[in-house]
Amino acid sequence: MNRTFAILLSIFSVPFLLHAQKLPITWTKVATGVWKASIGQPQKFDLLGAAGIHPQTKALQTLGEADFPLPKVECIAELQQGKVYLRFPLEKEEQLFGLGLNFQTVNQRGRILDLHMDHYGGTDNGRTHAPVPFYVSSKGYGVLINSAEYLTVYAGTGLRTDSKHPPKIYNRNSDKDWDAQPYSDVMEILVPANGVEVYVFAGNSPMQAVQRYNLFNGGGVLPPKWGLGFTQRVPTLSTAADVRKEVADFKLHHFPLDFIGLEPGWQTKSYPCSFEWEPSRFSDPAAFIKEMKDSNSIRLNLWLNPYLSPSSQHYPQLTKYAGTHTVWNGLVPDLNMPQAVNLYKSIFTKNHINPGISGYKIDEVDGYDNWLWPDVTSFPSGISAMQMRQRFGLQLQSLTASWFKEKNIRTYGLVRGSNAGASSLPYVIYDDYYNHRDFITALCNSSFIGVLWTPEVRSSPTAEEWLRRMQAVCFSPMAMLNAWSDGTKPWTYPEVEQQVTDVANLRMQLLPYIYNAFAQYHFEGKPPVRAMNLADSFYYAGEATSAALNSVTNPYPLAIKQDIKDQFLLGDDLLVAPFFAGEQKRKVILPKGNWYNFYTGAYAGNGEVIEIPATLDHIPLYVRDGAIIPMIPAMERAPRKEEVWPLELRHFGAAAGKLSLYDDDGESFDYEKGRYMHYQFSVIKDANGKWQGSVTTDNPQQLSPQYNHFTFTFMGQ
Amino acid sequence: MNRTFAILLSIFSVPFLLHAQKLPITWTKVATGVWKASIGQPQKFDLLGAAGIHPQTKALQTLGEADFPLPKVECIAELQQGKVYLRFPLEKEEQLFGLGLNFQTVNQRGRILDLHMDHYGGTDNGRTHAPVPFYVSSKGYGVLINSAEYLTVYAGTGLRTDSKHPPKIYNRNSDKDWDAQPYSDVMEILVPANGVEVYVFAGNSPMQAVQRYNLFNGGGVLPPKWGLGFTQRVPTLSTAADVRKEVADFKLHHFPLDFIGLEPGWQTKSYPCSFEWEPSRFSDPAAFIKEMKDSNSIRLNLWLNPYLSPSSQHYPQLTKYAGTHTVWNGLVPDLNMPQAVNLYKSIFTKNHINPGISGYKIDEVDGYDNWLWPDVTSFPSGISAMQMRQRFGLQLQSLTASWFKEKNIRTYGLVRGSNAGASSLPYVIYDDYYNHRDFITALCNSSFIGVLWTPEVRSSPTAEEWLRRMQAVCFSPMAMLNAWSDGTKPWTYPEVEQQVTDVANLRMQLLPYIYNAFAQYHFEGKPPVRAMNLADSFYYAGEATSAALNSVTNPYPLAIKQDIKDQFLLGDDLLVAPFFAGEQKRKVILPKGNWYNFYTGAYAGNGEVIEIPATLDHIPLYVRDGAIIPMIPAMERAPRKEEVWPLELRHFGAAAGKLSLYDDDGESFDYEKGRYMHYQFSVIKDANGKWQGSVTTDNPQQLSPQYNHFTFTFMGQ
Repeated sequence: MNRTFAILLSIFSVPFLLHAQKLPITWTKVATGVWKASIGQPQKFDLLGAAGIHPQTKALQTLGEADFPLPKVECIAELQQGKVYLRFPLEKEEQLFGLGLNFQTVNQRGRILDLHMDHYGGTDNGRTHAPVPFYVSSKGYGVLINSAEYLTVYAGTGLRTDSKHPPKIYNRNSDKDWDAQPYSDVMEILVPANGVEVYVFAGNSPMQAVQRYNLFNGGGVLPPKWGLGFTQRVPTLSTAADVRKEVADFKLHHFPLDFIGLEPGWQTKSYPCSFEWEPSRFSDPAAFIKEMKDSNSIRLNLWLNPYLSPSSQHYPQLTKYAGTHTVWNGLVPDLNMPQAVNLYKSIFTKNHINPGISGYKIDEVDGYDNWLWPDVTSFPSGISAMQMRQRFGLQLQSLTASWFKEKNIRTYGLVRGSNAGASSLPYVIYDDYYNHRDFITALCNSSFIGVLWTPEVRSSPTAEEWLRRMQAVCFSPMAMLNAWSDGTKPWTYPEVEQQVTDVANLRMQLLPYIYNAFAQYHFEGKPPVRAMNLADSFYYAGEATSAALNSVTNPYPLAIKQDIKDQFLLGDDLLVAPFFAGEQKRKVILPKGNWYNFYTGAYAGNGEVIEIPATLDHIPLYVRDGAIIPMIPAMERAPRKEEVWPLELRHFGAAAGKLSLYDDDGESFDYEKGRYMHYQFSVIKDANGKWQGSVTTDNPQQLSPQYNHFTFTFMGQ
Repeated sequence: MNRTFAILLSIFSVPFLLHAQKLPITWTKVATGVWKASIGQPQKFDLLGAAGIHPQTKALQTLGEADFPLPKVECIAELQQGKVYLRFPLEKEEQLFGLGLNFQTVNQRGRILDLHMDHYGGTDNGRTHAPVPFYVSSKGYGVLINSAEYLTVYAGTGLRTDSKHPPKIYNRNSDKDWDAQPYSDVMEILVPANGVEVYVFAGNSPMQAVQRYNLFNGGGVLPPKWGLGFTQRVPTLSTAADVRKEVADFKLHHFPLDFIGLEPGWQTKSYPCSFEWEPSRFSDPAAFIKEMKDSNSIRLNLWLNPYLSPSSQHYPQLTKYAGTHTVWNGLVPDLNMPQAVNLYKSIFTKNHINPGISGYKIDEVDGYDNWLWPDVTSFPSGISAMQMRQRFGLQLQSLTASWFKEKNIRTYGLVRGSNAGASSLPYVIYDDYYNHRDFITALCNSSFIGVLWTPEVRSSPTAEEWLRRMQAVCFSPMAMLNAWSDGTKPWTYPEVEQQVTDVANLRMQLLPYIYNAFAQYHFEGKPPVRAMNLADSFYYAGEATSAALNSVTNPYPLAIKQDIKDQFLLGDDLLVAPFFAGEQKRKVILPKGNWYNFYTGAYAGNGEVIEIPATLDHIPLYVRDGAIIPMIPAMERAPRKEEVWPLELRHFGAAAGKLSLYDDDGESFDYEKGRYMHYQFSVIKDANGKWQGSVTTDNPQQLSPQYNHFTFTFMGQ
């Protein structure tokens, strides 16, 4: 074999020295508005395969037929010394969003990204917790490179000599307009493999391209209702008694709580992990889990990293199905070997899922390099170390979710590494980085790439920052307090305790609205949190401010580009504009149409930039004209399926309104068999000019309705 | 061809999915104490080929025979999916130096580096101006990976399941000694190509391994004497008259000056460049160059970046021999095509070298990514964009140096990108980064990897920092002021003008010593500036300080390692311990043996750490016991070959001393034909206990001696 191989190698080395060779591209329609091209010899281990996607073909059909959104002759692939070089044309003023979970920038045009699974290191360079190789254009199309290699993306930086729209030539000696980064009309991607699958998604808007992407990936996740309530994590060596006390403390403070996360100490060993309960802290896990659920309606989430401790009885069995390198001495399971998957499934099912655990926090599947397996690791399935790294978090999400799903139980957990195809996976990304502004930018960016992100609250140097962080996290996919190490509680700062409680209660009141937003994610592909760039008919020119030449800090006068990254939409109708600690005022960009203050109903503006003063009491929220916001009373936990709640419908503005509110049992997958219903609310003015609200339901499967009493509040009066 | 290629590809894809395959390694002795292994199918375009090295085989012989310094069976290569995985064993306590021009760390053990040509971005991650894939071990051997690919180096971080020295297993739940980075016994390197050449250099010390590396690369550069004098650069749009004025200003202030650098505006066009003189600023370049040299003994250096402007008449001719992408609209010459080289040679010779220019400042051959050609660029020679990037600065150095050498003229210039094999190339690396401490760390690190670095002075917020930077740059390979943009002059801060002048004068006085250090670099391979880790019998344990766990900034309690990076040796006998702005005192680590204060001759210590108070007057310098430091009077320019100077010999300490002082014409390559001489100085105590100095010369070629009068000063009295 070795000899044949050597001969092949020597033959093969000849074409490597030739010029770049064009590779044919054939675009095949794979769903309505979605095309695929298999270029060269695509790799066996890609991203969508790891995510295990099931396209929602019917929902894609409802978005309608569309033309291929790019000029095909300008979509080019070449083979360069064993690597695929892709290029796509860019138009003037076209903006590009996505390309990984970025924390500081939104429009990626003009940037270079090495998409590489890693912890976020403070720079948007492609190394991030979700290095998703998908971008959506402001022109209304999306492109996915379905490759688990480390991709380099030149998002409109390269200057080809054969460019159709070459940049102007300046003489830096004499031309003031000389630009360190001249205009580029091309998107270029280097795939370090001899083949790749590319998907193109059509859209009449950036949102529609995102919808197609999410629907193609199975539709967005619909979390269990409890997953949208408040969550807290407890110190690593907490015992069952400590957890009971924490729950009691939350009750005492009337602070909402739906699930508790146990950190490493629930296990006998951690870093690497045994995945087994430590009996001195949890003597009867199943009984404790039941007690928590029955008496307090509290679910439990388990931290783990997926590296098996040598102390485990399963260690010898896994060695054959693990990588050549360990992480902190723990084996790295090759999740492409059925034996490894089956072993993990049996351990996790027996120890965690059967006793009633509701979800996981999957840690350290991202980086950083110094402890993750190196790129020289080999795995028994033949997957490369790099492919393994890009896919590992995705595979763990997909596998663990499937183990819950086999029991018809929805889960909702945390993960530190994700990638393309994750839309339907019930995990929210978190990390160790901790910049509040950047956390909100990440929230915006998550909406382009089919992932969820939580700007978790971990600690704070001041009461003000504590409040600002708590306010923002309550308008995110997971309202998480993760201050177990620091010890801060929601009520730690008495001067803002009331405001912190208020915003947590507001989150609880808005659960029907938030759940509806997730239903949209699932059935229509619209993400629950949305960057402003995904708002209807919204285009932000993103001014570039030229910065002064400075021989020390900016020797090539690089311009600074502006993005909208400090405000976002939650669902169709709410605009969230969080304050950051230290701010006395802020600007809010309102899209076209009338917008109203959520708290007062007052008119706020229309297609304009408003400036508002900071108050501690509220996180600024604006509501679209005619919107109906469904709310329940503030309770200390999310509604359970057997319960019946009154519903308040708040109508805003001067326009008539309609709301279709999705509902189901909130915890099983029966909705996939049609076991769901809608409430149809409408608000119109009667003949006397008075607002009138009405409600109808469709409930074909005769579900027991969660809401039985409807009150309309007209904020516009 | 395309069809054959596709068939080959499809056959080839099978072995890619197999496990890692062992590649045989055969170590062949290529020089005394130097071995090479060709593993797999090494690439055509490597680093040493770009540098154009000529091993100094005789000098290597004088270092003596040596055994292969590593256990051969533990040096392993595997082919993993078309990539070569190399690994070498590491011993406990072994330290690793080199691996690129790092700015913040010295010992690289426990670090991961992606060796990638780039500007330095503030983190030692392998992206730097000289990503040299060479490391030297504290055990006394060196390893060079002669590859122009982007290499990933795991310098003792990987934990193999088959490790012979596995780390201890801890339970993070309960073991305080749990370490985020467990002990690793392996050096691992990923070469993204199917073959690679590896060189191993033996040594009885780290210094000897470095010597072998430098001698194998042709021996270190011997600069022209004027290159070691002081240099200043003038504002970009300076005219001939402006340059005359600058020279006059230096004369007026009696500040030394040997060469002046012209920034972009000497050309008709820059960014991209025409390489042609702008007649409105320099109407008769040859006459001006001659005037400068004849009347003031001033040489001229020309800034350029190597990207050809579309305005150039040569542009159409170069298009066929350039890359598919431009840099700022300028063509990137494929320096592997003789046509491109010949074109550049003819332009540079005609426009610059023939008229008398003395050297270049080669800018922007490093990065950053946003304006360099992207990795998707293809070049007519078939070199990949990545190989081109790793080699480009090296090739430009080698080519331009050869154009001067053809005229038997030494040059000495500046470059922003270098790599392995550069030891003999007459260029000093500089950059845009500007942290004084990190500049000194880079100075230390340059000594491991056969490159030169200047901690150039660009600007300063305070007089103190200005002085501190000027003091340090005077003890570096190029005493450069580069404040053309900022406008600061050596005399700008009156409160430190005297001290700045003093240290510049001291540099000029020490030129015989510094030139001798460079002669050692050339003939013996010992770098002129040396990290402490290269000092004889010197070993620094480099304590690791454990840092506190912090959920926000240090969630995995990573220890902080200590290095000696704020002091260095210049030549054999001087220890330089610069102060940084704001310091009131500092520690100096003195190696074993008695050390003496340069300024007073007083005993300073022996194998110990001393603490010294800051004074503005002097940069702390210590001299080895028995050392003889040769000095000339302070003059405003370096000695020219026709001149005769008196020489002072300063003897330090209590031990008898010897000094062999190299000399030659200081500007031609005649030394390669043996046209050099040595002065042999010795100092001994006579029968009365009085110091007596003596001098003999060897001057086989009857050179006209530069020094004719010798005075001994005994600092130990």
